[in-house]
Amino acid sequence: MPNIANDPKRKSWIKVPENSDFPIQNIPFGVFITKEDVITIGTRIGDSAIDMGALQQLGYFDGIDLTDDMFMQDTLNDFISDGKKTWRLVRNRLSEIFDENNPTLRDNKKQRDIVIFDIKDIEMQLPVQIGDYTDFYSSKEHATNVGKMFRDPENALLPNWLHIPVGYHGRSSTIVPSGKSIRRPNGQTMPADATEPVFGPSKLVDFELEMAFITTDSNLMGEAIPVDEAEDYIFGMVLFNDWSARDIQKWEYVPLGPFLAKNFASTISPWIVTMDALAPFKTKSPEQSPTPLKYLQQKDKHTFDINLEVSLQPEDAAETVISKSNFKYMYWTMAQQLAHHTINGCRVNSGDMMGSGTISGPTPDSFGSMLELSWGGKNPLKLNDGTERKFINDNDTVIMRGYCQNEKVRIGFGECSGKLLPALEIK
Amino acid sequence: MPNIANDPKRKSWIKVPENSDFPIQNIPFGVFITKEDVITIGTRIGDSAIDMGALQQLGYFDGIDLTDDMFMQDTLNDFISDGKKTWRLVRNRLSEIFDENNPTLRDNKKQRDIVIFDIKDIEMQLPVQIGDYTDFYSSKEHATNVGKMFRDPENALLPNWLHIPVGYHGRSSTIVPSGKSIRRPNGQTMPADATEPVFGPSKLVDFELEMAFITTDSNLMGEAIPVDEAEDYIFGMVLFNDWSARDIQKWEYVPLGPFLAKNFASTISPWIVTMDALAPFKTKSPEQSPTPLKYLQQKDKHTFDINLEVSLQPEDAAETVISKSNFKYMYWTMAQQLAHHTINGCRVNSGDMMGSGTISGPTPDSFGSMLELSWGGKNPLKLNDGTERKFINDNDTVIMRGYCQNEKVRIGFGECSGKLLPALEIK
Repeated sequence: MPNIANDPKRKSWIKVPENSDFPIQNIPFGVFITKEDVITIGTRIGDSAIDMGALQQLGYFDGIDLTDDMFMQDTLNDFISDGKKTWRLVRNRLSEIFDENNPTLRDNKKQRDIVIFDIKDIEMQLPVQIGDYTDFYSSKEHATNVGKMFRDPENALLPNWLHIPVGYHGRSSTIVPSGKSIRRPNGQTMPADATEPVFGPSKLVDFELEMAFITTDSNLMGEAIPVDEAEDYIFGMVLFNDWSARDIQKWEYVPLGPFLAKNFASTISPWIVTMDALAPFKTKSPEQSPTPLKYLQQKDKHTFDINLEVSLQPEDAAETVISKSNFKYMYWTMAQQLAHHTINGCRVNSGDMMGSGTISGPTPDSFGSMLELSWGGKNPLKLNDGTERKFINDNDTVIMRGYCQNEKVRIGFGECSGKLLPALEIK
Repeated sequence: MPNIANDPKRKSWIKVPENSDFPIQNIPFGVFITKEDVITIGTRIGDSAIDMGALQQLGYFDGIDLTDDMFMQDTLNDFISDGKKTWRLVRNRLSEIFDENNPTLRDNKKQRDIVIFDIKDIEMQLPVQIGDYTDFYSSKEHATNVGKMFRDPENALLPNWLHIPVGYHGRSSTIVPSGKSIRRPNGQTMPADATEPVFGPSKLVDFELEMAFITTDSNLMGEAIPVDEAEDYIFGMVLFNDWSARDIQKWEYVPLGPFLAKNFASTISPWIVTMDALAPFKTKSPEQSPTPLKYLQQKDKHTFDINLEVSLQPEDAAETVISKSNFKYMYWTMAQQLAHHTINGCRVNSGDMMGSGTISGPTPDSFGSMLELSWGGKNPLKLNDGTERKFINDNDTVIMRGYCQNEKVRIGFGECSGKLLPALEIK
């Protein structure tokens, strides 16, 4: 069935501000709480949040095979589990409901008052119950930068890196939606000149600019997802800040990988932008040499041209843009990541989340972490308010933004924002 | 309130075979499906499975503050979330219902037929929906053995090991209950003499003898659980087989830890034995030197004397016991693991599972993996059927058992069993 919701000529009867991330061609999915404390699944057009639970009760999804309470839930998992065909039917229907030429809801004030809220009057929630969360490490530039700083500048990439989309498991329980403040973590570190570890707040809290994709139920345990089918099992994408404590990480991560350095918090943008909405922005990913093993081989275009930007905002000061990057720099594609993840029969469920790994571009102003931007603290960043940063200070807010743009339409992700609060005192 | 269910003098009107793991002093919790395809929460005495959903409907839990459908659910998460006081009230009540001197259910055949099933007639399920699964690495003997084999025999333990209960995140989606067969995983490996990785079934599939504990909702995000309170947030324990593919692991695990080498499957014993039932078997853990940092310091007894045993059973042959170990050998305690896990504010939820790491004892016959038992394949194990094993062959079954025993009572875990099927062919 055609993806009619992407028609760039369509306009909505809901006002869409210029340069909005959410024209009627986007139609992302999320979960929010209304002022009346009702939780619902919804979408967004311009600065309006749309209650899809209310739309369903009013019959606007009639004719689409959905359970009666599909959108009156507090997560998108069941909807995602229904698969790609249903996602497209629902997104197409929403596109029609809000088309400027469709009077049904447009001219029914009573229904509009039930269905449409100002974005300022709702509170975004986590869109899915995340079963398992995996983080990859798929930016060649990032892996090279880290290798140069911590290992051998001449052999920065480890031997497996060009053969495997390296990944590891993360913690789902501390993934939060944009806007929730984060605590600076306490933990064990081994100072450079010490012989015994010390305890206290991390001194090197960092962000990592990532994107994450959300899967549907992809396979049975024991079965692999072929790389050519993998994209059909991806529901959509969000911006992802993989908060990291570099000093804790350095002391704990050998030999089993990062643990407390990462699992204190990760922040996502709350609207899941569907792969259908992103389709016009498909582009080629970097050439892979050596050619990967057969189960990872893809032809044609399999990544997306998504502009990314990170700002740092000190308390009571304006933002400074500290990084400008693009998702297309990633060496390994999402399809390769998912094919690799399941090649051993690992089961993937609806609502699972997979992070890209830090997205660093080729130039220093496109690096995706403070670690790289300040080159391990050697080159502090100058902010617009005159202060400097090697890592993130207490009460700084980190804001990530991302959008696709062509001559006809802009499809964006909104904000992925989080403020770093001071550490709690441990008695 | 007293833990009256542990009274060693109590006998049940349900017959308990000699040396059963499940006397009336155990009262573990699990989830099963009856022959009539009803899923329910239950317990076990001797070889009888007891439908706690049916008991609740019949009023047997009246007076305890429970939601109406507490035991008519397909996971224990809500019950676990109710906390330690409720767990004890329910376990005490079960102890009274099945006391040989209590005629109420004993003498009511109609009710007994609804409530009690032969263990052979039910099918055990996963007892909890596992939100996040963490695996530790807390056996000093295991870490030393691995260090000797793969790193430096003179400095086998890494610098952080004696300071940190090292842990990493695992995958929840492939944890299965005892009895479910496992597929040999396919994957990438780098043979010793090769310059390019190869693809195919893992040649070095291993078990890891572990135990795991299940938590209740322990903290809010940002808050730490003090080590002295941590035990109150542990619901109970199971046996845990952390299946591992050593060749995949070797190639993939630097720098972010094991991934596909582990996430194809983990097997647990399906009855969760409560910490209350295990209390009589508390014992001292090994002395810790150097003294850990304050947030990890404990006094007194904090581990448990649990005998562990691993058998390997080739197809159509008898079992051979290949390892005899004990949980008490673990260097780091569960309370230390949980305190460490949350010291950075990482949130722990009801139903989360935390594995001990491979439990190896001090002698070669107490090692907890084929890797150690065969010392990297150098010393193949002889089985009773005359065959030898370096690692696990297709169609071998690995069976773990565990029990506590004193002069009065035996409290056991039943079996944690899984058969390794041949790899699927990847086209």
